[in-house]
Amino acid sequence: MDILAEIAGTLLTQAQKPTLAFLMGGMLLAALGSRLEVPEQVYKLIVLLLLLKVGLGAGISLREADPVTLAAPAAAAVALGIALVLIGARSLAVWPGVGRMDGMATAGLFGAVSASTLAAGMAVLDSEGVAYEGYIGVLYPFMDVAALITAIVLARVSAARGTATPGPDGTATVAVGGGGLGPGGLRDILSETARSPAISALLLGLAIGLVARPDVVYADFYEPLFRGLLSLLMLTMGMEAWSRLSELRKVAHAYVLFGLTAPLIHGALGLAAGVALHQLMGFSGGGAVLLAVMAASSSDISGPPTLRGALPEANPSAYVGASTGLGTPVAILSIPLWMALADKLIGL
Amino acid sequence: MDILAEIAGTLLTQAQKPTLAFLMGGMLLAALGSRLEVPEQVYKLIVLLLLLKVGLGAGISLREADPVTLAAPAAAAVALGIALVLIGARSLAVWPGVGRMDGMATAGLFGAVSASTLAAGMAVLDSEGVAYEGYIGVLYPFMDVAALITAIVLARVSAARGTATPGPDGTATVAVGGGGLGPGGLRDILSETARSPAISALLLGLAIGLVARPDVVYADFYEPLFRGLLSLLMLTMGMEAWSRLSELRKVAHAYVLFGLTAPLIHGALGLAAGVALHQLMGFSGGGAVLLAVMAASSSDISGPPTLRGALPEANPSAYVGASTGLGTPVAILSIPLWMALADKLIGL
Amino acid sequence: MDILAEIAGTLLTQAQKPTLAFLMGGMLLAALGSRLEVPEQVYKLIVLLLLLKVGLGAGISLREADPVTLAAPAAAAVALGIALVLIGARSLAVWPGVGRMDGMATAGLFGAVSASTLAAGMAVLDSEGVAYEGYIGVLYPFMDVAALITAIVLARVSAARGTATPGPDGTATVAVGGGGLGPGGLRDILSETARSPAISALLLGLAIGLVARPDVVYADFYEPLFRGLLSLLMLTMGMEAWSRLSELRKVAHAYVLFGLTAPLIHGALGLAAGVALHQLMGFSGGGAVLLAVMAASSSDISGPPTLRGALPEANPSAYVGASTGLGTPVAILSIPLWMALADKLIGL
Repeated sequence: MDILAEIAGTLLTQAQKPTLAFLMGGMLLAALGSRLEVPEQVYKLIVLLLLLKVGLGAGISLREADPVTLAAPAAAAVALGIALVLIGARSLAVWPGVGRMDGMATAGLFGAVSASTLAAGMAVLDSEGVAYEGYIGVLYPFMDVAALITAIVLARVSAARGTATPGPDGTATVAVGGGGLGPGGLRDILSETARSPAISALLLGLAIGLVARPDVVYADFYEPLFRGLLSLLMLTMGMEAWSRLSELRKVAHAYVLFGLTAPLIHGALGLAAGVALHQLMGFSGGGAVLLAVMAASSSDISGPPTLRGALPEANPSAYVGASTGLGTPVAILSIPLWMALADKLIGL
Repeated sequence: MDILAEIAGTLLTQAQKPTLAFLMGGMLLAALGSRLEVPEQVYKLIVLLLLLKVGLGAGISLREADPVTLAAPAAAAVALGIALVLIGARSLAVWPGVGRMDGMATAGLFGAVSASTLAAGMAVLDSEGVAYEGYIGVLYPFMDVAALITAIVLARVSAARGTATPGPDGTATVAVGGGGLGPGGLRDILSETARSPAISALLLGLAIGLVARPDVVYADFYEPLFRGLLSLLMLTMGMEAWSRLSELRKVAHAYVLFGLTAPLIHGALGLAAGVALHQLMGFSGGGAVLLAVMAASSSDISGPPTLRGALPEANPSAYVGASTGLGTPVAILSIPLWMALADKLIGL
Repeated sequence: MDILAEIAGTLLTQAQKPTLAFLMGGMLLAALGSRLEVPEQVYKLIVLLLLLKVGLGAGISLREADPVTLAAPAAAAVALGIALVLIGARSLAVWPGVGRMDGMATAGLFGAVSASTLAAGMAVLDSEGVAYEGYIGVLYPFMDVAALITAIVLARVSAARGTATPGPDGTATVAVGGGGLGPGGLRDILSETARSPAISALLLGLAIGLVARPDVVYADFYEPLFRGLLSLLMLTMGMEAWSRLSELRKVAHAYVLFGLTAPLIHGALGLAAGVALHQLMGFSGGGAVLLAVMAASSSDISGPPTLRGALPEANPSAYVGASTGLGTPVAILSIPLWMALADKLIGL
């Protein structure tokens, strides 16, 4: 079967990806007691460059897109990004014993998008000769940035209410603007989030990509440095993840459950949004499949540096582990499921 | 009109250049109170790499040039670089209320050369079919380095005389070696300048470019990193410029006046030097135009990191603002003026 | 003569190599009292990236090699790497007045391999139409890593025995596991060495290169950054070397003697190993020459950052000076000698 071979090949490639290898290498070094370290100032530079790159790339894609055609799918992508994080915030993040910050960061990563899982989805559709909208890649930053910012704001709201430490009120809801947090408090958190180094860099890159022409510096500098610096980031996160792994011992089952089921629930919501767009504006079946793949995927590129920068107190063992270890394989394996469902519902 | 379209296109490209976008982005971030920062050690690395790159590039160009043909035009370029800074030192830098360091740094940038304005001049001449000397690009580092070193030495001389703080003697002249500063003091300042990290890196790059063969490492490492690191430098300078903008409130008119008139006066001197070279050795009319463009332009690449490294007390709002905001547009808009004058005086 | 022209060209290229130019430039800056410096955290990043790159490169070569054919030559390369360092440990490092750390670091560099000297040897053989095994380049990391790790472990053993400071027992032998150091002590030192940042990075790179597919990030990030960052490392080592040059005044003759003779002795051992492999498995005469060239060469790429990271107390004036100033030219000049001997013994 062509699809199965394609999926198996994608899984193998994922397992051999240097991103994952550096993450596991970092964990191994920490386990063996290595004294290797990435200096703090260098780490800050890496996060700054990675986030500027993510923002610039999103801004450049947006600048080149047609706003009329894009309006409805982009709105759907933003709504999905927010909704997926809210699901995580009301399930994983309120699980007894799960740290609020850890849970919100994990929800953020699962709401955000993996460019390489999306690329795998496109490759499968191409190999089956299924057509999809050419602007589909532009939807990616909409869902991605919406999810990450929602997660960070919710985490900050939660911390401001003093529910960051797991306690008897660990099941309190974290709805936006609800409860004891007034609208002024929420405004403070939004403005605080926008001023944090991580989100500042992301939004600055987005703005420059939209209004200036950073295409050359993007292609010659930010893009080639990106994967390399990501390898160093993963190394650092692996070392940190190992040293904080023990914190998760008692709640590992919660992360495993979330990592296995969230991609399926998220993908179903993404497919539903695609079917709605099909009724509304004739969005293609292939496009609906890719919207499902985006929703099912969890971020392996933009997410970790953003969360590490904006929510330093969250435990990378939790969010990177659940996302890279479980979320990404499940998302890739579920690609044929979305194809079968889309074919049944609206035809491919 | 072809020329006007060319000029308009160049201005638009300049306004969308990422260099300017990152500068304004940095100012915006500072205005909004962002906590983004480029770590100090990283900043030092950026300045080191940028200055090594500028020096290496100049050294490699020099090594490949023919010394006999180059002698007179290079001497003219050096003389122009020094003269343009002296004009600024006796006008802007002694304006009542203008900080001595700020004024000298601005004079240095306006004496130095913008490679992209020079490239715009070449593009205009090419589109009009006007010929010029092939080695013209090699003249650029002569004028550029001469102007920057002159400005730094004059600023240090001025500081050593205790005239760095604007006061009643704010109109004292700052001629080299004159006044109460003995030749020993000047020697100290020259040797101190050469030993400063910024000028050390520039001169080291120049020396290695001249005597060794760093062409591969230059093309594979320094050149591609250059524009990217420049974007980070501009971001930092924008944030610093915003926080120091208020210092300039009372003397903004002096910078505006200088920014609008200096390119025209400098360009006229450059054209005069080109006409003199025409009489002396048959220098072409196109070459004279490009010498005028170089003199009119103000540095946007080599200048800011050099000055930031060597004169950290100078206010980037002053020198980068006047140069990028006023000097560069005026220099580009004046290209047809030099063409008309050169055509009238010696023919194109 | 073709060979002589080839050798002369190689020597000239070596003398103009930016690596050497940056080393001498750093010494010049230090001599002139420049205040240029590479920030400490940046320096650590450079060493980390260089060693990851060396490890990744070796791991990728190994992954692609055929284990059966490679077994005997690789074992010979490892044995040579260890033996060459032991020779240095029993000659230079026990010379009266030579610091134990400095002597061991120098022995390590002379045992390690220079990729560019090896490339010069290949170019000479190619120009003479002499064939050699295609996998010869894969032997390089075996000899290189074996020599560097042996040197670091011996230096640490020596320091643990309190013989690091030259004294009356300066002639004590430093054999592995011998004397008053029990097997537990040696185990500690081996594990300590593996956990040091430098060796951790090297081994991590090796492991990732072997089991994952970091080829793209290697080619797009680590490889292009490598020579550029090496230029900054050499600049720093040059400045440090100058400031510590006076320590060597009394024992300079020992380094000169070692630098002139070690490449010849090492090369002869390499050739002997090649002849033995010829008898054992039909290893070619050209392969034997290249094994001799590898043994004769001293490391100019992987060695300095490894030793600077793992043995920070060793004086770079000693090891980089002896290796770059004497070892490399002698190794290049001796290429025709190994060809003549191999031709006589087993035919080319």
